[in-house]
Amino acid sequence: MSENNIKILILHGPNLNLLGTREPEIYGAQTLEAINQDLSQLARELEVQVDCFQSNSEGELVDKIQQAKSEYQGVVINAAAYTHSSIALRDALIATGLPAVEVHLSNIYQREEFRHHSYLASVVVGQISGFGPQSYHLGLRAIVHQVRKGK
Amino acid sequence: MSENNIKILILHGPNLNLLGTREPEIYGAQTLEAINQDLSQLARELEVQVDCFQSNSEGELVDKIQQAKSEYQGVVINAAAYTHSSIALRDALIATGLPAVEVHLSNIYQREEFRHHSYLASVVVGQISGFGPQSYHLGLRAIVHQVRKGK
Amino acid sequence: MSENNIKILILHGPNLNLLGTREPEIYGAQTLEAINQDLSQLARELEVQVDCFQSNSEGELVDKIQQAKSEYQGVVINAAAYTHSSIALRDALIATGLPAVEVHLSNIYQREEFRHHSYLASVVVGQISGFGPQSYHLGLRAIVHQVRKGK
Amino acid sequence: MSENNIKILILHGPNLNLLGTREPEIYGAQTLEAINQDLSQLARELEVQVDCFQSNSEGELVDKIQQAKSEYQGVVINAAAYTHSSIALRDALIATGLPAVEVHLSNIYQREEFRHHSYLASVVVGQISGFGPQSYHLGLRAIVHQVRKGK
Amino acid sequence: MSENNIKILILHGPNLNLLGTREPEIYGAQTLEAINQDLSQLARELEVQVDCFQSNSEGELVDKIQQAKSEYQGVVINAAAYTHSSIALRDALIATGLPAVEVHLSNIYQREEFRHHSYLASVVVGQISGFGPQSYHLGLRAIVHQVRKGK
Amino acid sequence: MSENNIKILILHGPNLNLLGTREPEIYGAQTLEAINQDLSQLARELEVQVDCFQSNSEGELVDKIQQAKSEYQGVVINAAAYTHSSIALRDALIATGLPAVEVHLSNIYQREEFRHHSYLASVVVGQISGFGPQSYHLGLRAIVHQVRKGK
Amino acid sequence: MSENNIKILILHGPNLNLLGTREPEIYGAQTLEAINQDLSQLARELEVQVDCFQSNSEGELVDKIQQAKSEYQGVVINAAAYTHSSIALRDALIATGLPAVEVHLSNIYQREEFRHHSYLASVVVGQISGFGPQSYHLGLRAIVHQVRKGK
Amino acid sequence: MSENNIKILILHGPNLNLLGTREPEIYGAQTLEAINQDLSQLARELEVQVDCFQSNSEGELVDKIQQAKSEYQGVVINAAAYTHSSIALRDALIATGLPAVEVHLSNIYQREEFRHHSYLASVVVGQISGFGPQSYHLGLRAIVHQVRKGK
Amino acid sequence: MSENNIKILILHGPNLNLLGTREPEIYGAQTLEAINQDLSQLARELEVQVDCFQSNSEGELVDKIQQAKSEYQGVVINAAAYTHSSIALRDALIATGLPAVEVHLSNIYQREEFRHHSYLASVVVGQISGFGPQSYHLGLRAIVHQVRKGK
Amino acid sequence: MSENNIKILILHGPNLNLLGTREPEIYGAQTLEAINQDLSQLARELEVQVDCFQSNSEGELVDKIQQAKSEYQGVVINAAAYTHSSIALRDALIATGLPAVEVHLSNIYQREEFRHHSYLASVVVGQISGFGPQSYHLGLRAIVHQVRKGK
Amino acid sequence: MSENNIKILILHGPNLNLLGTREPEIYGAQTLEAINQDLSQLARELEVQVDCFQSNSEGELVDKIQQAKSEYQGVVINAAAYTHSSIALRDALIATGLPAVEVHLSNIYQREEFRHHSYLASVVVGQISGFGPQSYHLGLRAIVHQVRKGK
Amino acid sequence: MSENNIKILILHGPNLNLLGTREPEIYGAQTLEAINQDLSQLARELEVQVDCFQSNSEGELVDKIQQAKSEYQGVVINAAAYTHSSIALRDALIATGLPAVEVHLSNIYQREEFRHHSYLASVVVGQISGFGPQSYHLGLRAIVHQVRKGK
Repeated sequence: MSENNIKILILHGPNLNLLGTREPEIYGAQTLEAINQDLSQLARELEVQVDCFQSNSEGELVDKIQQAKSEYQGVVINAAAYTHSSIALRDALIATGLPAVEVHLSNIYQREEFRHHSYLASVVVGQISGFGPQSYHLGLRAIVHQVRKGK
Repeated sequence: MSENNIKILILHGPNLNLLGTREPEIYGAQTLEAINQDLSQLARELEVQVDCFQSNSEGELVDKIQQAKSEYQGVVINAAAYTHSSIALRDALIATGLPAVEVHLSNIYQREEFRHHSYLASVVVGQISGFGPQSYHLGLRAIVHQVRKGK
Repeated sequence: MSENNIKILILHGPNLNLLGTREPEIYGAQTLEAINQDLSQLARELEVQVDCFQSNSEGELVDKIQQAKSEYQGVVINAAAYTHSSIALRDALIATGLPAVEVHLSNIYQREEFRHHSYLASVVVGQISGFGPQSYHLGLRAIVHQVRKGK
Repeated sequence: MSENNIKILILHGPNLNLLGTREPEIYGAQTLEAINQDLSQLARELEVQVDCFQSNSEGELVDKIQQAKSEYQGVVINAAAYTHSSIALRDALIATGLPAVEVHLSNIYQREEFRHHSYLASVVVGQISGFGPQSYHLGLRAIVHQVRKGK
Repeated sequence: MSENNIKILILHGPNLNLLGTREPEIYGAQTLEAINQDLSQLARELEVQVDCFQSNSEGELVDKIQQAKSEYQGVVINAAAYTHSSIALRDALIATGLPAVEVHLSNIYQREEFRHHSYLASVVVGQISGFGPQSYHLGLRAIVHQVRKGK
Repeated sequence: MSENNIKILILHGPNLNLLGTREPEIYGAQTLEAINQDLSQLARELEVQVDCFQSNSEGELVDKIQQAKSEYQGVVINAAAYTHSSIALRDALIATGLPAVEVHLSNIYQREEFRHHSYLASVVVGQISGFGPQSYHLGLRAIVHQVRKGK
Repeated sequence: MSENNIKILILHGPNLNLLGTREPEIYGAQTLEAINQDLSQLARELEVQVDCFQSNSEGELVDKIQQAKSEYQGVVINAAAYTHSSIALRDALIATGLPAVEVHLSNIYQREEFRHHSYLASVVVGQISGFGPQSYHLGLRAIVHQVRKGK
Repeated sequence: MSENNIKILILHGPNLNLLGTREPEIYGAQTLEAINQDLSQLARELEVQVDCFQSNSEGELVDKIQQAKSEYQGVVINAAAYTHSSIALRDALIATGLPAVEVHLSNIYQREEFRHHSYLASVVVGQISGFGPQSYHLGLRAIVHQVRKGK
Repeated sequence: MSENNIKILILHGPNLNLLGTREPEIYGAQTLEAINQDLSQLARELEVQVDCFQSNSEGELVDKIQQAKSEYQGVVINAAAYTHSSIALRDALIATGLPAVEVHLSNIYQREEFRHHSYLASVVVGQISGFGPQSYHLGLRAIVHQVRKGK
Repeated sequence: MSENNIKILILHGPNLNLLGTREPEIYGAQTLEAINQDLSQLARELEVQVDCFQSNSEGELVDKIQQAKSEYQGVVINAAAYTHSSIALRDALIATGLPAVEVHLSNIYQREEFRHHSYLASVVVGQISGFGPQSYHLGLRAIVHQVRKGK
Repeated sequence: MSENNIKILILHGPNLNLLGTREPEIYGAQTLEAINQDLSQLARELEVQVDCFQSNSEGELVDKIQQAKSEYQGVVINAAAYTHSSIALRDALIATGLPAVEVHLSNIYQREEFRHHSYLASVVVGQISGFGPQSYHLGLRAIVHQVRKGK
Repeated sequence: MSENNIKILILHGPNLNLLGTREPEIYGAQTLEAINQDLSQLARELEVQVDCFQSNSEGELVDKIQQAKSEYQGVVINAAAYTHSSIALRDALIATGLPAVEVHLSNIYQREEFRHHSYLASVVVGQISGFGPQSYHLGLRAIVHQVRKGK
């Protein structure tokens, strides 16, 4: 497989489909579509492919992670609210064994106490939090770097 | 828009479709359909419209709240078990910006410790708990009052 | 006894005599007297009688609840600060055996952590929190409904 | 109804469809299909019928439990990750009133702290944890025994 | 002063004036007046004097303890609900320096968690809990014994 | 059986055989033998019989409680250190169904935090703490009173 | 209003009327009257007026704070035991909006754990603790300074 | 050694000798002797040998586990009250290295909070809780299965 | 030594050198130099001497406290961030035995939870918090008063 | 100032000078010097300047942050052990008002519990954790992006 | 008594009789007998006498400590599992008043959380943990030193 | 390298330079210099070399530990106050990989709660606490033994 065949799955959790309209002072004014387009642009620069998927359903996100194994080499995931409550997503990430990077638009450590704990943080390669849409960009760079160095 | 165009969405969470058969000593003997009919009757008295929706799926409830924005002026929500675990429902309510009232059939403070905390309580206008089907009636009165006073 | 003989005691706890001047952004601009008049008006509509009583003293409120038994069929209580510290009020409500409804002007779940717990919540019929003076109105409707259905 | 008409529903929660590939050092090398076949074999020995159902969606599992009432006399449930977070599954089990046995492949008390607590444990007949696929076998024996003795 | 001049103050806290009517399955069927008469009878046997005082007001109980110093040699106190919340009663007991015995009709360790802690327990001679009206009798014996042995 | 056939078992837990030499500022100067003699004297006054037993072994104390059922009508127990750690003694008391009174020489609420909790308190009739050897005397009076009133 | 019309209310909580006799090793040997006289002397030096009020009743202290608004420009309060339990005093201070200074004779951080938390500390200008009667003097200087600088 | 030489030690902890008389609504009406006979019967079916041992003494149970190593291939243990307090039993199980199965008659997760934690759970193969005497049967099946598969 | 030889050490902890520029809405607009000059002015009025020292290093502050013993009779310390984390400063204060007063510009009880606890509070004479630069003035008055009264 | 005049300060906390030798399985085999050189290389690509500074002393790191204000437009900080204990570094970052990015070589959420909390996280723009030396690269990209977009 | 008459009691708690076979990676390969012989050898060098005693029974260890008083001048105790659960051993050590040293083969702070707390640590002279059999040697040296210096 | 070339670094943390004057009832009357001389004497007996170093600065202690690697084979450390707060010292010890022994003059388990936890305990060979200056002697013996046995 040539290296430019690297494919990364970008996962967006619940309510992220509302980006641009939802609490813009926290999440910014960019829509999810715009973020996805920017990520596609960055992917081309990095010579990889990305697919983006959003769902409000925990089960669908688990399904998607399970199916990712055969097609992708890494995952960038913003699980949004499910970050703090979903052991099922955690188990799905462990089960697939794919390297993953956890990203958050807002700095979760400046928000409510219950957003400070992530069930994903201890099973992903690393976590990036607080840079708005740039969090995704850094996350994509990070996962590509991890995949390329064969981690 | 004339005032009698006010539309309120009534949301019922998991297992509420079993009302009338499930633990009647806690939840009462009335079925969900009967409750919905009574609410429609009260709506007519209050000169507003109500739509009712029940789901056992957290994701579907999130979807429904997101879609509510364009059609409804307020929400009455009994999130049942998801009250105590769903940050995604909380985020959806915040994201839509619609005023909402949280209702519970049983008095959640007389039950298990884990039912005393609500992820919704701090993002809704107010909470009504413990009056059986009347909780919904009071909730509908409350949300209509809130919407009419332009809150 | 004919049903329109129903008498309800409305109890207001500490500092509620200052309503209208105290933190109006939290408690609203209406005075306690105005609230009491509105409640009397609603009582007439519901064809019941109400008496209102306010005290800053925990002991006086306990006394009042004890005396209520022979004269009233139900209680609407906003115990204010004593909600969160008074086991004596809780015991008084249990001892009289009168059905009671707990109300709060502000949404206590949006305020300091120590206001989230109520010593009354688990001994009353139900709790209504967050609707400003309307909380009392809903509370009066609720208790009358409870008394009438013979609960 | 003759006794050999006893039907038991076997429920598998999120990520269990990956058995055999997922963390085999914890969950073993047997696939879910193989486990289901073994359970069918044991069911024949015990002269009962079993149906097996897996889903990654909390809502679908709740739906399934609700529907079980009319067709099954008991449930064996491995709720996997939802064991530790789902009050909705707990409520569904209570609501149907069917006797249930909770099983776990791994010994949940040897794993992360957050896996030590089960929302189901206090509403099922009993819990069996740590015996790999044999946990299901023991669970099936247990529920059949419970059903037969008319508990 | 001859020994038979020993005077003991018996203090009853909030809601104890309702004894006999309030939750008789917990507190028994005897009225407070009957208890006080029995205590007077026992006092005569023990050749001491007792005075009894009840109040629903924390401040009045504090006042009474402060005034006790010049007239009594010991205190038997059932602070009821204030047992668990009143640092002021604790401070009053310390300040007077009078030996005191804490009594409870019910076994406070069989009731709600918040009734297990007493602010008085660590500043009195000892605690007696669970024997119904006999708790007072044992308490009176105890305090008289303490006073007589010059403790 | 005539009433003066009432037999009470007095149980002393670990290290109480050292009374009189061990930390006399906490436990007093009286030996266990002296306490037992005083209890026998009081028993004669109350027209009952008492047997006393001390052991440093949790298992022996459990054995003794189990055997008590056929011979005694009540138990006075000072479980000393085992008060705070022994669920087995608690279970033994429940299992025999004999009424029991828990006593402590010292006021356990004035000592280390870990001595404030008793595993026995919620399964005995009541607890008496802090009166030195008099705690036993009050305990004997209490249990005899309980047995005689047929509780 | 000329500046020397500044009036400050000094509030003393429960048991402080016993000063001089109560635990002098903690609270010092000075009586409350002597402290009040010293404060009047200091007030003259600072060219302000002070009134002093003591009560053992939480409700009376709440009443006094409410009435203070029209007559005083600031409050110095030693709420004693109520510091640690009274949300009603806290609410009264917020409601009046008068600047207040919290003082304590003893260093509350050297005493029991339950005295380390103050319900008043976060709603007053500042807290002064540990200097004996000088705490009041510093408190009076502090509040006068605050009032004069127009805070 | 031929396989039918497998010997299993069944250990019963404190108060289990009272089975059949002790709280039958929790523990059932079967005596320990009857349970042991049923286990012997099941052992014959499974073609293994079992020895049963009960003690109220933690030390004797530790001794027995230590001695088990040379004679038994596995242990079924119901440590009863010691489950929740005995680190010594835990250490003994680890020290012998024998595979063990923890069983409980009652569902320990439906009982007092302090019975939810087991010191043994994380050092045994697995735990079976809640099936009455059947818990032992399932436990025996489980340990035999474990031993036979050479775990 | 004549009394006007009294020398007081004023210690400023980390980041206080930035006063006047750092978060003026919390810490005020006055620079540290200005505060020090005001303190020197007040010292002259009180007829004592003061030296001021600031460091961002915990070790240097410990060194300074150790050296203070031979030259100063008292300490006024604003340990800033180290208030909440430094046991070494606490030990240094104890070791020198010099009386000290703890001061804070802001009201630490109105800020983040982790600023509510002070490691110094229980080893100093007293604490003054919330009066801006006046906190230092009150602290200087307090320590001079303590030193003069020979405490 | 032209944009390519942007200067970023890179701060390394305690023990990071040992990189390459210290626990390479956690921190990687690259030395701090090599990391600094790679950062200089990346800085040239991004057309900014970077200066790097390491210290084992909390006070020196505070000093450095204070001095950064006049010379740098942003900070990348790996505070290492001080991340979890230093309120002084937190205060220094707030005081300077410079945007900062917190980075960690290892995934701090996969390590000891006490490394999960950061005193810096809620005062920086964002946090990047777990990518080895790449964490610094991502951090540099992030801060440059923040500075350029004028945040 | 000549100094070389010093006698020290060495106490070994539960499961230590298995040393050499039990978890040698934690407890080392030396048997208890070998450790005892080495201690006797060291005792001869130190010119004291030692007796060694092991039991798996908490009660027997309590008995032994009680009897030690008349024969020994000090105790070296490795209470093993009872370290973390036995208040009775703690009380026995206090009651005898003999100086004692607590030793542990393994470093208890590197093991499970529940092994970090010792009920003995605060009543012994000191604690030595983590040096394998050398812990006993250091403990013997320590207690002899303490006894000789007359502490 | 001949064995008598073994060099051990003795590290003393903050405030230990004050030994002999600081709280002698806790830390003893011996000065640090005297302790160091005694350690040199013991080192000669054990045929090793020791160097001693004290600092009040956490950063300097970290520096010293880092430098120790090339010159010493082991460390004896009394980190004093930093024991309970310094993750940096912990990391330095891990990073150097040198075996270390933690010592304390006082029994830290008899002091304030916050002194019961050590950040070093789980990364050193073992801990010795409570024997005054002898703690160092035992620590030196322990580390020499560890180094010699090649651990």
